[in-house]
Amino acid sequence: MGVPPVTIDDIADAAGRIAGQAARTPLIGCPLLDDRVGGRILFKCENLQRTGSFKFRGAYNTLAAMPQDLRRRGVVAVSSGNHAQGVAEAARLFGVPATIVMPVDAPATKRRRTVRSGARIVDYDRVNEDRDKVAAQFIMRNGGTLVHPYNDPQVIAGQGTIGAEIISACTTLGLEPDAILIPCGGGGLSAGIGVAFREGMSDVAVSIVEPAGFDDYGRSLALGEIVTNSSLAGSICDALLAPSPGAIGFALNKGNLTGALTVTDDEALDAVAFAFREMRLVVEPGGAVGMAAVLAGHFDCQDRVVIVVLSGGNIDDSVLRTALERGN
Amino acid sequence: MGVPPVTIDDIADAAGRIAGQAARTPLIGCPLLDDRVGGRILFKCENLQRTGSFKFRGAYNTLAAMPQDLRRRGVVAVSSGNHAQGVAEAARLFGVPATIVMPVDAPATKRRRTVRSGARIVDYDRVNEDRDKVAAQFIMRNGGTLVHPYNDPQVIAGQGTIGAEIISACTTLGLEPDAILIPCGGGGLSAGIGVAFREGMSDVAVSIVEPAGFDDYGRSLALGEIVTNSSLAGSICDALLAPSPGAIGFALNKGNLTGALTVTDDEALDAVAFAFREMRLVVEPGGAVGMAAVLAGHFDCQDRVVIVVLSGGNIDDSVLRTALERGN
Repeated sequence: MGVPPVTIDDIADAAGRIAGQAARTPLIGCPLLDDRVGGRILFKCENLQRTGSFKFRGAYNTLAAMPQDLRRRGVVAVSSGNHAQGVAEAARLFGVPATIVMPVDAPATKRRRTVRSGARIVDYDRVNEDRDKVAAQFIMRNGGTLVHPYNDPQVIAGQGTIGAEIISACTTLGLEPDAILIPCGGGGLSAGIGVAFREGMSDVAVSIVEPAGFDDYGRSLALGEIVTNSSLAGSICDALLAPSPGAIGFALNKGNLTGALTVTDDEALDAVAFAFREMRLVVEPGGAVGMAAVLAGHFDCQDRVVIVVLSGGNIDDSVLRTALERGN
Repeated sequence: MGVPPVTIDDIADAAGRIAGQAARTPLIGCPLLDDRVGGRILFKCENLQRTGSFKFRGAYNTLAAMPQDLRRRGVVAVSSGNHAQGVAEAARLFGVPATIVMPVDAPATKRRRTVRSGARIVDYDRVNEDRDKVAAQFIMRNGGTLVHPYNDPQVIAGQGTIGAEIISACTTLGLEPDAILIPCGGGGLSAGIGVAFREGMSDVAVSIVEPAGFDDYGRSLALGEIVTNSSLAGSICDALLAPSPGAIGFALNKGNLTGALTVTDDEALDAVAFAFREMRLVVEPGGAVGMAAVLAGHFDCQDRVVIVVLSGGNIDDSVLRTALERGN
């Protein structure tokens, strides 16, 4: 059974669509870390992206690529987190209605930000309701197009613009990266970046990083078929808890990825604290797993140039406090 | 009485010396803020500089410009904060000894970072000792060159590289800024940036921002002569509490600056919280005063492109907590 491919041309088209709306986020180094690991690490700071995560790229690209009369009828997303904010902000910019299906117990800050973008929130009960059914029912009654957080070619192409920007920045700097580490939930981010690197810098090793115990993607890659996490909650990395790889991204990632790593919650929290104290960057645990893999020594950086994607920065104050207290 | 001038050539020389050691920090926008103020604001993120503040630029340039046999005998700085870290790190990179004269009650984190760079700390008692005398006595006994935090042409030239980078980035982006807001303590940062803008983008309005009650610089500019703050402590903006303008910078700033603003401690803390929540940036209160002036409406940004320097990000956890709790 075929899935739609995503090509470097799709990524180039996406880059054109998001230009001027999404930030070209900076690549930031950390000499202290370089000394520690004996290599050169550069962080692609998607925590500094509009809405605080890479999700805005895919969401904006998807809305921009939709036929106008379809887009006008509105978009729907199922998310309590970064994807919700990305879709809500993209819809606001196009002046179209957005509806976010969100658990009643979603964090107040994420709810407030989503509402601020003008989105309507439809609550569901995590325990007694199926969120996909709630979304489907809403669309049946009210119309609108579902924007999937990762299993969508335009979403993947939008995230792929990160890869294109990294390649462009490295070329300008005269840097030849050896590897890139990418936080992984449903696999849309790694799929898009993987396509960009296979075309633009094909020698670079492309690895994903997942929370320990939620390594559905790594296990799926090892088996060559999609498997599911046994738990759906229980990691501090709330941004990375997709139940299983999306089919479209998996078809790409099977050929493009060269490795899969995991980090513990404590390692992710240590990375959050390191980013805060040593780089003055606010990163959420799920966004920091690539940095965590480097800090914990799970990835050999000796004499290598390694790009690490910091995928998001929407952290609750209490989680940041937990991270900072660990370091004291 | 003449003071040594600092020219655009000195800044170009400094840029060559610090290249590869100091970060070329990013210019980062915030669409949410742009909507709010009706203009376009771009933040020059020196909180993301090596050691967490712009001070590294001036310190490194000063050490790099010193005759080698002088540098080898070591450097001395009087500071409990960002200048100490900048000088200590620059000395480490040159492999020369650094001694930092620091109050015994300096924050533990700042002390730890300074020690980490290999610097020796000489304690003094804020109440009963004059820190400049302590430094002078140390140099008389042990040798070494004092690196002043702002009243030094090479320090000013180093800070001026920020202006050169902003001009270069704006030119690349096709942006013509109308104004720049610069946090101001002793005036070294604004003096360097002012020289760069007078030469490279002479139509840009260059304003400094000080903590309310510590507006020695603004009052000195208005009077045309150097005056001193009545208090030496008592603002949350600890990075900006120099007692009076440095003579070298003042001679430059008299001709180059077009305005001076002040912000309250509460306004600075609100900016710290805004930078954290909306931009995922860690900024210290003194580093955030330019942003505070914009957020509090003290500077009209309507239909203008305004550059705001975020000069540092070395904030204590407790101060950040205070800032975040205000917003809730």
